[in-house]
Amino acid sequence: MSELCYFEGKFMPVEECRIPVTDMLIQRGVGTFESIRIYNGRPFGLTPHLERFENSVKTAGINTSEIDIKKIETIIREGLARDDCPKEGMVKPYMTGGDINNPKGHFPKPRFFMIFAPVASAKTQDEIDNGIALLPNRMYRPNPLVKSINYLFGLIPLGQSDGSYFESVYVTPDGEFTEGMTSNFYLVQGNKIITAPVGKVLKGVTRGIVLTLARENGFEIEERCPRESELAKADEAFITGSIKEIVSVVRVGDTTIGNGKPSPIARKIQDLYTANRSRWLE
Amino acid sequence: MSELCYFEGKFMPVEECRIPVTDMLIQRGVGTFESIRIYNGRPFGLTPHLERFENSVKTAGINTSEIDIKKIETIIREGLARDDCPKEGMVKPYMTGGDINNPKGHFPKPRFFMIFAPVASAKTQDEIDNGIALLPNRMYRPNPLVKSINYLFGLIPLGQSDGSYFESVYVTPDGEFTEGMTSNFYLVQGNKIITAPVGKVLKGVTRGIVLTLARENGFEIEERCPRESELAKADEAFITGSIKEIVSVVRVGDTTIGNGKPSPIARKIQDLYTANRSRWLE
Repeated sequence: MSELCYFEGKFMPVEECRIPVTDMLIQRGVGTFESIRIYNGRPFGLTPHLERFENSVKTAGINTSEIDIKKIETIIREGLARDDCPKEGMVKPYMTGGDINNPKGHFPKPRFFMIFAPVASAKTQDEIDNGIALLPNRMYRPNPLVKSINYLFGLIPLGQSDGSYFESVYVTPDGEFTEGMTSNFYLVQGNKIITAPVGKVLKGVTRGIVLTLARENGFEIEERCPRESELAKADEAFITGSIKEIVSVVRVGDTTIGNGKPSPIARKIQDLYTANRSRWLE
Repeated sequence: MSELCYFEGKFMPVEECRIPVTDMLIQRGVGTFESIRIYNGRPFGLTPHLERFENSVKTAGINTSEIDIKKIETIIREGLARDDCPKEGMVKPYMTGGDINNPKGHFPKPRFFMIFAPVASAKTQDEIDNGIALLPNRMYRPNPLVKSINYLFGLIPLGQSDGSYFESVYVTPDGEFTEGMTSNFYLVQGNKIITAPVGKVLKGVTRGIVLTLARENGFEIEERCPRESELAKADEAFITGSIKEIVSVVRVGDTTIGNGKPSPIARKIQDLYTANRSRWLE
């Protein structure tokens, strides 16, 4: 099933959805969005995603009086009820800076559109069976609480790499791992799961759910940045995201994690996530 | 005179130029561009701008076999020869990641468009008479050699400020000034002009010309980052850019520069820049 778009009050095939080159997203990267997973026609974690969306829009200087969370929810429901809308997929609402180029960082007339896209599988069978590798990207991610379209600086090192990496992971000049380019990052040591605190990283919706499930199931959580020096002695590592769910990390740069194979705790967390899905379907 | 666009082999009013929301510029910020000043229908510093453009495209992982500098130059000349093209203005070629979402950071099918826009004045009379203020933005600019559309992180602090600032200026956590959001930054101390070296900052075309003119006219140049601790004792500060040319900086954050008024060396550099314009018109 192909992609569907909502734009200027209408649903249309994604190929027909085009925005003017004067939009401040195109001119200056002023664009915020969300990726919300759809399972069997129902959005997962919709409320925290839309709350985060509103926060990103506001922090980006985009006029929030033009954003109506209830209305966006209604459009998502309308889209999902259509025959031409993928029922296993994701919905991505976007709010851009619009056409007024205000060099002072205020965007009074935003532009809104939404993409409904199929997701064949959250990850490949190879990624499930063998885990993935992450490429350390030595920089601070600017404004991590804003989910914006500015991913180029996470992609550049990946494009210059040997191609063996799933994505890049931000590590500060002092050796603190913050988050993956499109994911949260976790180290596991014994019964303890270590992950960066919100604020140093995006408030991951999957992250929040995973930490809830982990606590309910007896894991100890340490909310601090995993350190580079801890990689070699960690038992496991994994990343999480709304679309990819939980993915085992078996290598970070040149460092093998644990025994270099996907390991039991990441798998257990994935099983818990799947088993508890209905709690966050809306 | 309104803006003109070149897209998919045709010239058109800018309002008609729209790109698909599937483009990787819109999805992931994969977009590079240049702003080239046009004086009386002739491009200024065209060759260094197009060389930099090619380098940005390449570093961003965009397929360079799709970029032909000679062809872009021909399109610029064709545009400038048209009656509906602004003769005092700027031309902005863009190369985007195109519609193929390759998560590994390679973009095989880029999209190209170009905007010709009028520039009424490089800066306001008030900015010329009274100088401007810059807002310190405490972060490293990622990949400074790539001129990309990812400006959001320079705009956010500006949108949260009191509105008195012309733009933000990057300063590292150790107190080194690198560059303005859309400019290069200079401190003046006696006969010495201090500015960050290329690599720590974008290879500014105006920067190169200004340093050439300054050297020719007996100024000493120090290519190193101006330090925060040097601001209060500096005689002058200024920024440069292709569109704004040279602008006096009279305040950085809360620190007044010199006597708080536009001062003689920035003015002298601007006069040299204007007087020598024909050397870089192509």
